[in-house]
Amino acid sequence: MDLHEMDRYIKSIIKEAGHRIRNSFLSDISIESKSDADDLVTNIDKEIEQFFISRINRDFPGHRIYGEEGFGDDIQDHKGIIWLLDPIDGTMNFVHQKRNFAISLGVYEEGIGKLGYIYDVVNDDLYHGVLGGGAYYNDERLSKLKDTVIGESIIAMNATWAVPNSYFDHKGTLQLIQDVRGIRSYGSAALELAYLASGRVDAYLSMRLSPWDIAGGMVIAGEVGAIATNFNGAPANLLEQDTFLAANPSIHSQILEKYILPK
Amino acid sequence: MDLHEMDRYIKSIIKEAGHRIRNSFLSDISIESKSDADDLVTNIDKEIEQFFISRINRDFPGHRIYGEEGFGDDIQDHKGIIWLLDPIDGTMNFVHQKRNFAISLGVYEEGIGKLGYIYDVVNDDLYHGVLGGGAYYNDERLSKLKDTVIGESIIAMNATWAVPNSYFDHKGTLQLIQDVRGIRSYGSAALELAYLASGRVDAYLSMRLSPWDIAGGMVIAGEVGAIATNFNGAPANLLEQDTFLAANPSIHSQILEKYILPK
Repeated sequence: MDLHEMDRYIKSIIKEAGHRIRNSFLSDISIESKSDADDLVTNIDKEIEQFFISRINRDFPGHRIYGEEGFGDDIQDHKGIIWLLDPIDGTMNFVHQKRNFAISLGVYEEGIGKLGYIYDVVNDDLYHGVLGGGAYYNDERLSKLKDTVIGESIIAMNATWAVPNSYFDHKGTLQLIQDVRGIRSYGSAALELAYLASGRVDAYLSMRLSPWDIAGGMVIAGEVGAIATNFNGAPANLLEQDTFLAANPSIHSQILEKYILPK
Repeated sequence: MDLHEMDRYIKSIIKEAGHRIRNSFLSDISIESKSDADDLVTNIDKEIEQFFISRINRDFPGHRIYGEEGFGDDIQDHKGIIWLLDPIDGTMNFVHQKRNFAISLGVYEEGIGKLGYIYDVVNDDLYHGVLGGGAYYNDERLSKLKDTVIGESIIAMNATWAVPNSYFDHKGTLQLIQDVRGIRSYGSAALELAYLASGRVDAYLSMRLSPWDIAGGMVIAGEVGAIATNFNGAPANLLEQDTFLAANPSIHSQILEKYILPK
């Protein structure tokens, strides 16, 4: 892989996809539900995924694609080069707000994240990272994350995870909410990882994320020192849906050990 | 009051204040805590409030000012014309994120909101409303809110309100979190009211807000049909800190009656 050349190529198709999404605001968007009533998908999610796949298949034959809408490949292992794509991360925001959603893309080789992109379409803000080459907010290089403490941290987390549930003891989450400086929720895992990478939040956690939600952001956040695991402390899952915690390295293990309590 | 002339005047000083805030990013900001460790204030909050007060006193003698930082008047009643000002609503975001905060300003006459402004400084987005004259997002007139249902609503609410507390039964809030389509939290009451007015969220609630947090947004949201009360259903409190619910009129009373349960 020539990372520099691929980086240029990817930025160009992401910007083209963003243009197509902004244009879609002028036409009717058809909305359906997937796994449950609140898990939305639109014709635009599908069209944008197909746009990426047609370009990648044409220009990078042999690469595999793991996309949210299922038009890509059936991925069961980390072999070779895999593009992990969420054409619209934050579809609920896309539908209700026409903003606060992103294109999320990660390129992995043998399970190692090489390139990561999060494109905030409406604000025309591109976050990207290259393994060993740093992370960027548009043209600005992002600094390494500075140490913090729980009591001065802002955590991105959906209030849903404070509700009693079958996954873990919600009393830990309730305690976390009380102990941190602030809780925010933006409704897009990709943007929340971009905000972690740019130091606007100090951690992001979710009980249920898919590989395409996190693949791009993990490369970007990793370049500024963030740590990403599942709730058991194992490397974040890039093959199937799992729990997820990405955080400033100075508080990652503390959140895991003190607040994410097994049921 | 010549509303048209005042509107022009206010927009001009708000833009000047925004310019001063953006410039402050280039210098050191000194941060203190107020009532508790997470209730932040900076020298910039104070300087901007003093800037507004000096202009208002000079150009509108006889008007009173009710400002978050306490440099204005001691307000105990609704008499005459009162400017309710939060120079930086969302100070925690201002400090940690350098974005997602707003100038919030409402002008009330005998307790009636005549003019309202929320200025998202970093995005240079101005929301404003004139009693009887409509609400605007920059130059775009905002539409009346369309009817919705709880199950398809996005609610802006801090996860803090899901924690057991002495104000009301948090089990109602937990049920609301489960019943709505999504929960968001942006960390600025003013911006959350602006998002309600522009239909990006369908309700915003908080257990503890001050008059300057809500005064501007209430005029704007009121112009598109939103209803704002405290948790007892009484008109939102413009004299002292209180509970607050502003919502799309089709779901306001349902949220109050079904989910905000007295302890």
